[in-house]
Amino acid sequence: MDQPTHNGRTMSETLDSLPTPALILDRAVLLRNTRRMSQRLAAAGVALRPHVKTAKSLEVARLATEGHDGRITVSTLAEARYFAAGGFKDIFYAVGIVPSKLPAISALRRQGVNLRVVTDNLPVARAIAESGSAGNSFSVFIEIDSGAGRAGLPYPDLSALVEIARTLHDAPNIELAGVMTHGGHSYHENTVAGIRRAADQERIAVTAAAKMLRDAGLPCPIVSAGSTPTTMHAAGFEGITEMRPGVYVFNDLDQVGIGSCGAGDMALSVMASVIGHYPHRNQLLIDAGALALSKDISAQEFMPKAGYGTIKDSPVPELAVVACSQEHGFVGADAALPYDKLPIGSRVRIMPNHACITAAAYDRYYVVDSEQGDGRTVIATYDRVNGW
Amino acid sequence: MDQPTHNGRTMSETLDSLPTPALILDRAVLLRNTRRMSQRLAAAGVALRPHVKTAKSLEVARLATEGHDGRITVSTLAEARYFAAGGFKDIFYAVGIVPSKLPAISALRRQGVNLRVVTDNLPVARAIAESGSAGNSFSVFIEIDSGAGRAGLPYPDLSALVEIARTLHDAPNIELAGVMTHGGHSYHENTVAGIRRAADQERIAVTAAAKMLRDAGLPCPIVSAGSTPTTMHAAGFEGITEMRPGVYVFNDLDQVGIGSCGAGDMALSVMASVIGHYPHRNQLLIDAGALALSKDISAQEFMPKAGYGTIKDSPVPELAVVACSQEHGFVGADAALPYDKLPIGSRVRIMPNHACITAAAYDRYYVVDSEQGDGRTVIATYDRVNGW
Repeated sequence: MDQPTHNGRTMSETLDSLPTPALILDRAVLLRNTRRMSQRLAAAGVALRPHVKTAKSLEVARLATEGHDGRITVSTLAEARYFAAGGFKDIFYAVGIVPSKLPAISALRRQGVNLRVVTDNLPVARAIAESGSAGNSFSVFIEIDSGAGRAGLPYPDLSALVEIARTLHDAPNIELAGVMTHGGHSYHENTVAGIRRAADQERIAVTAAAKMLRDAGLPCPIVSAGSTPTTMHAAGFEGITEMRPGVYVFNDLDQVGIGSCGAGDMALSVMASVIGHYPHRNQLLIDAGALALSKDISAQEFMPKAGYGTIKDSPVPELAVVACSQEHGFVGADAALPYDKLPIGSRVRIMPNHACITAAAYDRYYVVDSEQGDGRTVIATYDRVNGW
Repeated sequence: MDQPTHNGRTMSETLDSLPTPALILDRAVLLRNTRRMSQRLAAAGVALRPHVKTAKSLEVARLATEGHDGRITVSTLAEARYFAAGGFKDIFYAVGIVPSKLPAISALRRQGVNLRVVTDNLPVARAIAESGSAGNSFSVFIEIDSGAGRAGLPYPDLSALVEIARTLHDAPNIELAGVMTHGGHSYHENTVAGIRRAADQERIAVTAAAKMLRDAGLPCPIVSAGSTPTTMHAAGFEGITEMRPGVYVFNDLDQVGIGSCGAGDMALSVMASVIGHYPHRNQLLIDAGALALSKDISAQEFMPKAGYGTIKDSPVPELAVVACSQEHGFVGADAALPYDKLPIGSRVRIMPNHACITAAAYDRYYVVDSEQGDGRTVIATYDRVNGW
């Protein structure tokens, strides 16, 4: 049945009737991606704690955790609240905590959610230790930098690790959750061998940290690592208890470029309308620009012609969004544009550079299924949580 | 009085209590910016049709149109609906229209809002002409490319102009609103002389188009141009009836870099918390990354050290966000970082590269006033409309 939704539109939408720009999610590809990862980690005997910052969607998180114990990773307090309200009970907020956020953490923990936090430094460990009380318990990871050069104690210099851990462990109502790392440097590799090397570094660093804690008589129940590329291509997970891949649910040009997935594994696209033809400069314009696509150009590292996204099922090779202003996307290619095949008012789908960043501009996914009928009927909408 | 708001927080917030990241708007600077522009155009006898896509906020749009007739420019249908609901009656949706959006335009026009649209091509002009009826009237601009190389008939080749205009004018219930251009190429100049040249090109192109229409016996009531730089620095506005600057309400590093404004004219910043120190690589991390700041690096064209934003009131020169992942900002400088002055848990304010794009990640502004007290009390929140 047609159901009225916002703005008086009805649910019998198709890709031809949706307002543009719109964020389109292909459920068939999504399910392939979530099942592949789920099976890979189940077979390895490693827990899956997907990073739900990519989709920020309850429906996608439920699919991603199917058959697993429901633990997830988030990147904001807004996500923590949203997923807690949706029934998730073991949530790791994986961005370095600061003391001012502890009351918000406590508030969620008092509702029965095991919301875990992370730090890599003694000042915050001390602040957490001082905040611990019967009504303010915390579960804390210590972060290790296994080569990404972002947060964490820089392996192999883990000299500060034991003092941070002991400060937490000795305090009342504080649980030392374990150690964690993120092999983000794998995003700058584009061979399986290179990604596997990053995965080795992830595993070596985080398991060395776990051993150091245990050798000091401290607990380390969870040894947490992961990124999409390292989880897909790691030679093994020995000593790791959970992996935290994120973007694999959708994939994107960046993941295709580095070899985490194939082009057919991209579940997300932005649908836009052609709004003008400019043959004097061999371009056309679409109504999806910097906000609808994001200005993330990660994929250009290994796909120099990825632009701000490539056109799906393009009539010419390497048709891409070559420039963006706020609401205009400039589409071009080396070949002459076939304007007759892309008339003004027609619709194109743009494969995003970096799905996590592109999706953040939208409040919902319009879900289609490329394996059902012509794949153009909107079968569901999934909401998202944005902001902080 | 303290009033409860979302998440149980109260209104007695200050910059020291707000959750981070947060979008901070300095009302004193905002008012200086809106009044300067308002006075400049009032003195020139040119109407001000601010492009409200920057702030997407009713409160800011009301300040920007104070003393003028209330006409505004928008970039999305979501903005059109929001500002119409807020009482704005003359709204120009300045992104090339496509036939599929005409029913939404009509729906708003039937509510008494003069929502005007734009095109630069005959197929759309014909579709609009065919859609015109007693209950479906339209007001249509024709877009001219005065040198930006984005949308519009490419001046001086305006050979298609009269046919497009006549197609619209001859149709029932269609008003030919006039001609419009956007001198976006001024963003790539960084001298007053260069910006003035772009402003001249804007004026010459759009007034030539107006003359061509009038010479053909067609009406051209509105001659619309404008960008922030060209409106600030144009030598004159002869023949132009309205200007559409946008980012001037906030300004940003990009506008400082090109010389549209001074560093003290930036009204918008992102407040973030320091979450970690990394002396081995002379960096620190903040909890504002690609989503909180955007990945727009426009300002780097003329400010190579602008990064993804610079730190306000920094204790060392040229402290900037040098890299971003989704929720992490990497802060660095050439000089050694003074970690004692930026302890973990302390707060910094980041001046954005491109205010329009950065603001789009937030649903509200926390408003402070740098000329009241210590400037750290949140005196209001202004909401925003995002999405499409």
